[in-house]
Amino acid sequence: MMENHGNLLHNIQSLISFDETEKDIITGLFKEKTYKKGDFFLADGQICKQVGFVAKGLMRYYINHDGEEKTYAFSQENEYVCNYESFIPQSPSSKIIQALEDSVVLVISHSDLQLLYAKVREGERYGRIAIEMVFLQILKDINSFYTETPELRYERFLKNHSDLQQRISQYHIASFVGVKPQSLSRIRKRIFSKI
Amino acid sequence: MMENHGNLLHNIQSLISFDETEKDIITGLFKEKTYKKGDFFLADGQICKQVGFVAKGLMRYYINHDGEEKTYAFSQENEYVCNYESFIPQSPSSKIIQALEDSVVLVISHSDLQLLYAKVREGERYGRIAIEMVFLQILKDINSFYTETPELRYERFLKNHSDLQQRISQYHIASFVGVKPQSLSRIRKRIFSKI
Repeated sequence: MMENHGNLLHNIQSLISFDETEKDIITGLFKEKTYKKGDFFLADGQICKQVGFVAKGLMRYYINHDGEEKTYAFSQENEYVCNYESFIPQSPSSKIIQALEDSVVLVISHSDLQLLYAKVREGERYGRIAIEMVFLQILKDINSFYTETPELRYERFLKNHSDLQQRISQYHIASFVGVKPQSLSRIRKRIFSKI
Repeated sequence: MMENHGNLLHNIQSLISFDETEKDIITGLFKEKTYKKGDFFLADGQICKQVGFVAKGLMRYYINHDGEEKTYAFSQENEYVCNYESFIPQSPSSKIIQALEDSVVLVISHSDLQLLYAKVREGERYGRIAIEMVFLQILKDINSFYTETPELRYERFLKNHSDLQQRISQYHIASFVGVKPQSLSRIRKRIFSKI
């Protein structure tokens, strides 16, 4: 059960230092959960009650916009998964997070995270730095979502998620890029003919 | 000189507790700076090297988009002023922050903020909670900027900044709403005829 915590502890250790007792506290507070492909980490209108760290698998973030799904981000192994917009104020979410593959996620509840802040000496520092990093990433994602052309978004996807190309369907990649699947084929042809 | 620190200390005290020694540390790290109307808190392309707390005055945030200024936020008394997108990673800013009135701002430099985190026992907690609040506000601002109609944006402005109506020119309010000044007049007529 604890073998999946290795990468999480490594991630936290890159931000703060902690001793053996604190390591046990952290390991105890992040519980292992499994999600089958298609399961929701966060369903429409729910309050996001947990932050996860993906040990195995892949999550997709999207909005339901007039019946059309708009994908705006992915979280894969060794990345956090959460809708902080809902998690921080504990208010209902307009975003949806769904497992694209069978996944194993280490999750900490909102109240257990407050415990971590209180019990681990540098817990607040971990929280502060982690949220700063998330904040910057989300600003980049939003900026890309609203201002970049589909071609640029596809190139960004290839650059940031080159390993995910084979794991995500063309349908979901097209949704992330912001076009219909047939337009994605044309974009792919243009880009690959340039190389 | 210290009289302007009262509201800042009150703001910090709403998030964490601190003793007299820590109060002196905080007061010493936030230095008073004055900005004349038109002065830049952050100029185009500069690195944002400080977070400010507005003791008196008003700041406007905007982007230069193909020569056109797009206003997206304001900071007034008892609010923080910063472009965190540039401040956190200490990278050049594409956003501009300018004083709309003669202003007095209590500023803390990036390096002094790290000192505050280290020297004040709950300093990291203050940083964590403050950045979470800023994060939520910015997500709301961005969402409004990209998805709301000018009418909704004007109504939001009236609701959130009712006291600023007399302090901000119609030119800058129109820029915030996302229309030309003459269109703002039409929006104002429609809204006020409904009341």
